[in-house]
Amino acid sequence: MKIAVDGMGGDYAPEEAVKGAVIAAKEYGVEIALVGPPETMQQELAKHDLKNAQIEVVSASQYLVEGEPPAYALRQKRDASIIVATKLVREGKADAVVSAGPTGGVVAAALYLLGTIEEISRPVVGGPFLGFAPDTIMMDLGTNVDCQPYQLLDFAIVGTVYARKMMGISNPTVALLSIGAEEGKGNELVKESYPLFQKSGLNFIGNVEGYDIPSCRANVIICDGFVGNVVVKFCESLGKTIANWLEEKLSGKLPEDAVREMTEELVRATNAADVQGGGPLWAVNGVCCVSHGRSRAAEIAKTIGQAKLAVEQDLVGTLKAELAAARDRLKESGS
Amino acid sequence: MKIAVDGMGGDYAPEEAVKGAVIAAKEYGVEIALVGPPETMQQELAKHDLKNAQIEVVSASQYLVEGEPPAYALRQKRDASIIVATKLVREGKADAVVSAGPTGGVVAAALYLLGTIEEISRPVVGGPFLGFAPDTIMMDLGTNVDCQPYQLLDFAIVGTVYARKMMGISNPTVALLSIGAEEGKGNELVKESYPLFQKSGLNFIGNVEGYDIPSCRANVIICDGFVGNVVVKFCESLGKTIANWLEEKLSGKLPEDAVREMTEELVRATNAADVQGGGPLWAVNGVCCVSHGRSRAAEIAKTIGQAKLAVEQDLVGTLKAELAAARDRLKESGS
Repeated sequence: MKIAVDGMGGDYAPEEAVKGAVIAAKEYGVEIALVGPPETMQQELAKHDLKNAQIEVVSASQYLVEGEPPAYALRQKRDASIIVATKLVREGKADAVVSAGPTGGVVAAALYLLGTIEEISRPVVGGPFLGFAPDTIMMDLGTNVDCQPYQLLDFAIVGTVYARKMMGISNPTVALLSIGAEEGKGNELVKESYPLFQKSGLNFIGNVEGYDIPSCRANVIICDGFVGNVVVKFCESLGKTIANWLEEKLSGKLPEDAVREMTEELVRATNAADVQGGGPLWAVNGVCCVSHGRSRAAEIAKTIGQAKLAVEQDLVGTLKAELAAARDRLKESGS
Repeated sequence: MKIAVDGMGGDYAPEEAVKGAVIAAKEYGVEIALVGPPETMQQELAKHDLKNAQIEVVSASQYLVEGEPPAYALRQKRDASIIVATKLVREGKADAVVSAGPTGGVVAAALYLLGTIEEISRPVVGGPFLGFAPDTIMMDLGTNVDCQPYQLLDFAIVGTVYARKMMGISNPTVALLSIGAEEGKGNELVKESYPLFQKSGLNFIGNVEGYDIPSCRANVIICDGFVGNVVVKFCESLGKTIANWLEEKLSGKLPEDAVREMTEELVRATNAADVQGGGPLWAVNGVCCVSHGRSRAAEIAKTIGQAKLAVEQDLVGTLKAELAAARDRLKESGS
C-alpha cells in the first residue's frame, strides 16, 4: 500500500510532516510518497534513521499557505504539493492522500481531482468531537448548512460506515439531533427525516436532544452542518472557558503542574481537532485524510494510520454499497 | 402594585410558593394575590410572620400537575390556580402573574387569556443561560423552531428590550448566531436576516459563532429556537459531565466540601434554569413571569421581583413601541 503525504502541509511543515511520514512508514509498514520540493524533503529526511522506512520523494515545487482562497490558490499553484499528492491517488499511483495543509485547499483539491461519490455533491465532515463521548460521532459539522432530509440520511449512512469500519462498533446506533425525544418533536427537517430514517435499515433509535450529546446515547448523531458547527465551536469555547475558571479556582490549592495537567486534559477533551486528530474526508471518491493544521509528527503519523485503515476497510467501496442499499430499501418501501 | 402568585405552582408548592410570596411581599413591598385552595393557602401563611406583608388569598380549587398535556389540563381544570391567577391580570385586578408551575400550562394559560402582542404569534423564550457570560442573552430557546427572518428580528427587538429594561444595559449589542463572522456566512435564514438586521436600527454587530457565545461578544445573540434549544441543553449536560469529571479528578486531593462547592458552582453556571431563575414570558400581552419548576422560595421571590421590575419598566408597552418603530424603519428603507 502506498500513501501520498503532503510534505508541506501543516503549521509545522516540513519538519513535522516529514517526521510523521517516517514514523508512519516504520510503524504501519506502508510505502510513502513524500510530496514536496525535493531538496527540502531530502534535507528533512536526512535528519532521520530511514531503516525499514520505504519513502520515495515526489517533486512538487509549490505549496498552499493558510489564508489563501482555495480556488484561487489551486489555479495559481498547479504544482502545489497537495495537488501533486492528490493526483497520485487519481492516477492510481497511491492508495490514499494525507495532508495537514489548509482544509479549504485540501477539500478543493479532493473535489477537483477525485470528485464525490454518487449523488453526494459535497463532502461530509464529522467525527468524534468530545473526549467525554469517545464513541459518539456527529455529522455534519459545517460543510452542508441548508439540508434536505435525504442529505441527513446520507450523513447517517456515512456515520454508520465511519463507526463500523473506523471505530469497530459493529451495529452503531443512529439518532437525529432534535429538541424532544418523541417522534414529531423538532423542526421541519427533523420531522421529515424521521420516517426516512425509520425505513432506512439503519439502527435508528429516534431523536436525541442537546442534553444527550455528552452521554453517548447514540453512536451517530445527525444534524445539519449549521447546528453541528455551532455546537462544536461552542463546545470548544466552553471547554476553554471552564479550563480558565478551573485554573483560577485551583491556583494555590494544588501544585501548578497538576493544575496545568487538568486544564490541558479538559481543553483536549472539548476540542474537536484534538479529539478527532485526522480523519477521512467523507463522500470523496478516493481516500483523502485531513489532519488539523497544528498537527505534530505524532498526529500526522496517526492520520496516515487512519488512511491505511480506510484503504484496508475499503471505505469508499463500502460507503458506495451502503448508499445504494439504503436507496433500494427506501424505493422498496415506496419512499 | 399587585402581583398574582400561583400558590400551587412548582415542585415544592405550596410550601415554597407561599413562602416565596411572603418574602417578596416584604422585600419588594408589593401586594400579593395568592391563588390556590383557600384552606391550604391559609395553612401555609400561618407558618410565617405576616407583618408588613400585604397578602390576600384568592380561591382556586384546582391546580396543574407536571406531565399533563396543557391544552387538556386547561379545559378540564377551569378553576386551576394558574388560570385564576392569569385571569386576575386580564381583568386588571393584578398587574402581573408569577408561577413556577408546568411551563406548558403557564404558557397555554397566558396565550389563552392574555394573547400575544401585535404580530408575534407565539411567545419568545430566552435570557442569560451561561454564568460565565452574565451579560449575554440568547433567543429563542425552543418555542419557535422553524423561523422566518422577520421572526428573528422580533426576537432581537425582544432581546434588546430585555437587556435594556431588565438588565440595565443601555445600548445592547445584537448579533446573529452563525458559522462564520463575515456577512454571507451562514444558512439561508441567517443570510436573509442579515440585511434586515442592518436596517433595523438595532445595535447590530454582525454574526457571531458558537465559539463566541461564552465570551460576551454580544449582549443579545439571536438564533431560531431549534439551534437555541440544542445549545442550551448541550451546555447544561456538558457542564454536568465536566463537574463529574472534576469531582473524580479532585477526589482525595482537596477536602470534600471544597470539591462539592466547585462542582456545584460549575453546574449552576452552566444550567440555564439556575442562571436565569425566573423571567418574563416574552411577547405575551401582559406581564407573566415563569419560574423554573424546581424553584425554592428564594427563586420564587426573585421572580416576583422580576415581575415588579417588568411592570415598573412597562415591558409590554415598551416592546410594542419598539416593534412598531422597527417596522416603521424597515418600511422607510423599503424592506
